[in-house]
Amino acid sequence: MALLVVGSVALDSLETPFGRREDVLGGSASYFSACSSFFGPTRLVAVVGEDFPEEHVRFLAGRGVDLAGLSREPGKTFRWKGRYEFDLNTAHTLDTQLNVFAGFRPVLPASFRGSEFVFLGNIDPDLQRAVLDQVERPRFVGCDTMNYWITSKRQSLLETLKRVDMLFVNDAEARQLAGEHNVVKAARAILSMGPRSLVVKRGEYGALFFSGDEVFAASAFPLPEVFDPTGAGDSFAGGFMGYLAHRGRADAPTMRRAIVLGSVLASFAVEQFSLDRLRTLRPEEIRARYAEARGLAHFDDLESDLFNGAATPG
Amino acid sequence: MALLVVGSVALDSLETPFGRREDVLGGSASYFSACSSFFGPTRLVAVVGEDFPEEHVRFLAGRGVDLAGLSREPGKTFRWKGRYEFDLNTAHTLDTQLNVFAGFRPVLPASFRGSEFVFLGNIDPDLQRAVLDQVERPRFVGCDTMNYWITSKRQSLLETLKRVDMLFVNDAEARQLAGEHNVVKAARAILSMGPRSLVVKRGEYGALFFSGDEVFAASAFPLPEVFDPTGAGDSFAGGFMGYLAHRGRADAPTMRRAIVLGSVLASFAVEQFSLDRLRTLRPEEIRARYAEARGLAHFDDLESDLFNGAATPG
Repeated sequence: MALLVVGSVALDSLETPFGRREDVLGGSASYFSACSSFFGPTRLVAVVGEDFPEEHVRFLAGRGVDLAGLSREPGKTFRWKGRYEFDLNTAHTLDTQLNVFAGFRPVLPASFRGSEFVFLGNIDPDLQRAVLDQVERPRFVGCDTMNYWITSKRQSLLETLKRVDMLFVNDAEARQLAGEHNVVKAARAILSMGPRSLVVKRGEYGALFFSGDEVFAASAFPLPEVFDPTGAGDSFAGGFMGYLAHRGRADAPTMRRAIVLGSVLASFAVEQFSLDRLRTLRPEEIRARYAEARGLAHFDDLESDLFNGAATPG
Repeated sequence: MALLVVGSVALDSLETPFGRREDVLGGSASYFSACSSFFGPTRLVAVVGEDFPEEHVRFLAGRGVDLAGLSREPGKTFRWKGRYEFDLNTAHTLDTQLNVFAGFRPVLPASFRGSEFVFLGNIDPDLQRAVLDQVERPRFVGCDTMNYWITSKRQSLLETLKRVDMLFVNDAEARQLAGEHNVVKAARAILSMGPRSLVVKRGEYGALFFSGDEVFAASAFPLPEVFDPTGAGDSFAGGFMGYLAHRGRADAPTMRRAIVLGSVLASFAVEQFSLDRLRTLRPEEIRARYAEARGLAHFDDLESDLFNGAATPG
């Protein structure tokens, strides 16, 4: 089924302990669609400026991304400059220039309005609902957000959450949104706000998935080399939503496979700067790492007679 | 097969966001043996002072712990006072009184020297080797350590590591021991120091197990209530080693089940102060949470035709 993503397409400047890059391709919709496009065509809605290099447009189009919703506006492209310390878990924003993104008012081409699977990237929750208003009959809506919207536009975000099926946040955002430190309690509180499901991303530790009474814990792939964590969350969402849309369903076993695929795509994305690893990534590598993830997580059932001779509390 | 633990038996005073307790039962050998004894008898070597309450001796003996190696010396019992902040991940030591533990020179009763499975709790690495010298033919040696020994007695610790089968450390300790931030690279470096296997405990995030080229990731049980993280690592080791000794083997599938059982025991230990939850814990609860851990981690294989229609990099 058709998958739509609305988010940012940006030019990033990055500093990590392993090097730096200037004005490389970035943005949530870029990472998302580069990953989701492994599973099927993806419709992208975003805005870039006059300075946006044509090579990036060709790259995304070459991945089967439908760019009918990518508008080019007078001015400069959204720029983000960030630095990662040695632990690579926390991004420090050095500079943000919204440029044309400041005036972003997503308008869906007519051909996009029938999309069944929708991912709302991390943008103003007012705009997220404006997107949903333009989708005729969404079957599954995924949504990202961040600390900025949780504090500065909380009421609007809560309105959006009533209309989404699944929220993607990291653990700090989950705690902040719920006002609760314990992640299990925070998850329960967030599920009561509207989303049927929630994924709590925990960086190098993996992700927790909550849906009703179900909990699924996916370990992140332990990587010997992490070059650039930028876009890991959007790559996760792209792998997740791409697989769901490809399957056209969102039952529990499908969601679990989707979460592992999200982790797998994220694990590739961080191996090189920007989207570089996604440019060379091949389906058979995704399949092989998924199989490794199965091996990583597998353990057998206990013996039925285990405790027969055991001491019991007196 | 017979399991031996050498470590501390202490009186802890604890402050957490949920309350405080004074002079409650603590120490690595206490937590370890309370957990390992679910799987079979455990031989304990430790020292306490004249003030050590008889009720704690009765509790451990009632769990089938062989206390022939628990010596009572003139003076006071080892005391540790700690505080946990809201995130519960980091213990802040407020006070340590070694007391009789300062002169601890572990001597194994003759009846303990044939133990096949040995766990060296977090003590001076000189003493850890002195214990091994007294064991006739150990089949599997587990070893804990901490930042203090890694920095102040590094050479001695490296000598000990040559004689152990498996090291138990947390991620900060693994990084410090290896001098390497990336946990996968740190694990490889540690395996080159001697241990055949390594478990890296990551608190609320679970544990990574490394052995040769094998990696196993066990998610911690997501708990809505964590009261007191004290002893979680020793409970993990107790569940792990108790199961291994019960099975009398240490092949890869057995090690994986043991790691999950270690996580399960640790998840119970933190639900109440001190060893209180372990006092009421029953084997069927361990079995049930192990089954939940299986449900938490399970996901299916991918469809074989998944990428047939996918875009591939150009």
